[in-house]
Amino acid sequence: MRMAELSERSGIPVPTIKYYLREGVLPRGERTGRSQARYGVEHLRRLRLVRALTDVGGLSIAAVREILASVDSPEPTAHELLGRTLEDVTPLTRRFGDADESDAERAAELVGRRAWCVPNEQRALTDLAEVLSAFRRVGHPVDEAMLDGYAAAVERIARVDLDFVGGVTETDEILERAVVGTVLGDALLAVLRRLAQTGESARRSGASADGR
Amino acid sequence: MRMAELSERSGIPVPTIKYYLREGVLPRGERTGRSQARYGVEHLRRLRLVRALTDVGGLSIAAVREILASVDSPEPTAHELLGRTLEDVTPLTRRFGDADESDAERAAELVGRRAWCVPNEQRALTDLAEVLSAFRRVGHPVDEAMLDGYAAAVERIARVDLDFVGGVTETDEILERAVVGTVLGDALLAVLRRLAQTGESARRSGASADGR
Repeated sequence: MRMAELSERSGIPVPTIKYYLREGVLPRGERTGRSQARYGVEHLRRLRLVRALTDVGGLSIAAVREILASVDSPEPTAHELLGRTLEDVTPLTRRFGDADESDAERAAELVGRRAWCVPNEQRALTDLAEVLSAFRRVGHPVDEAMLDGYAAAVERIARVDLDFVGGVTETDEILERAVVGTVLGDALLAVLRRLAQTGESARRSGASADGR
Repeated sequence: MRMAELSERSGIPVPTIKYYLREGVLPRGERTGRSQARYGVEHLRRLRLVRALTDVGGLSIAAVREILASVDSPEPTAHELLGRTLEDVTPLTRRFGDADESDAERAAELVGRRAWCVPNEQRALTDLAEVLSAFRRVGHPVDEAMLDGYAAAVERIARVDLDFVGGVTETDEILERAVVGTVLGDALLAVLRRLAQTGESARRSGASADGR
């Protein structure tokens, strides 16, 4: 298809597509004339991934270029790719300052106890320690029961997440789903959590009113 | 205690405490002289709540004043208070544009199906519809299995959350814990989710490698 059709089918304006070509996040089409090129369905798919990374993931074009370089490099496994992409999307999380040594140990212990097979250098491990320290600093440390309750719940969530990515074989689409599922999924979980809290709070206040 | 001791015990500088007094988010102390006042343990507690709302919750002083006005008004139930406070903290969530009619219906259906007893006007209900529409707009609608999987997981999380708030009787401390648990809790859950995804992904890629 021509540039005009690529724009129409993707819903992305021509100037934006040209910008992506210049920035190297969209491969050039096949030259068919002095100022014309032909684009295929792989360009459409790549455009969707770029939009997911920038609009949903909030990443810069430079960060997108880096992710795509590893997508296009020979033979990364889907598992490696997923890991790298999610690490890049993670910085969206608010920072809460440095972690105490004891919380770093606690984070490592939890990951070991749940057999999550996380490499020591994975940033999420440091992030976990930092959030645990933030709770402690505001005077409300997270106890083991709370941590294990959350851990059991997120294991269930992770199974749903992997099913969301699982049925797909194209690398671009796996990554696109991973980004969408992670970023929009965080928002979805946060809002569902508020609603479930309302339900649980109503249930408990009803129960205590009955018990009078 | 004097202002100096209040500052020392709370870790909040005197000029900041004076600012809170002027803004009406901290009640005046008992006058003991021309330019002296005495503060009690209720001032310490209130200072902690103000810090939790501003630093952890990211709220403006005006928003804090409004929450505190409802805390101090006669006889709100703990359940009402919790609801109002969490509504105020919720705007931290990123906005994703308007919801489709069909997603508004789906949100209402889910809440009914899970018996979460959410009032129709609660903002989280609109938020849920908006996030569902955002998934749809990027081409990856959330199916019922995913939605119900998440819902079951957040119900477990909500029980942990209510336990976190539950053992406490002082209104200020209930609210403080609710804010900390909601905001830091969202961050904690997001990072645990990444770790659990790594675990689940490793498990599945190991399983498929064994199965060859």
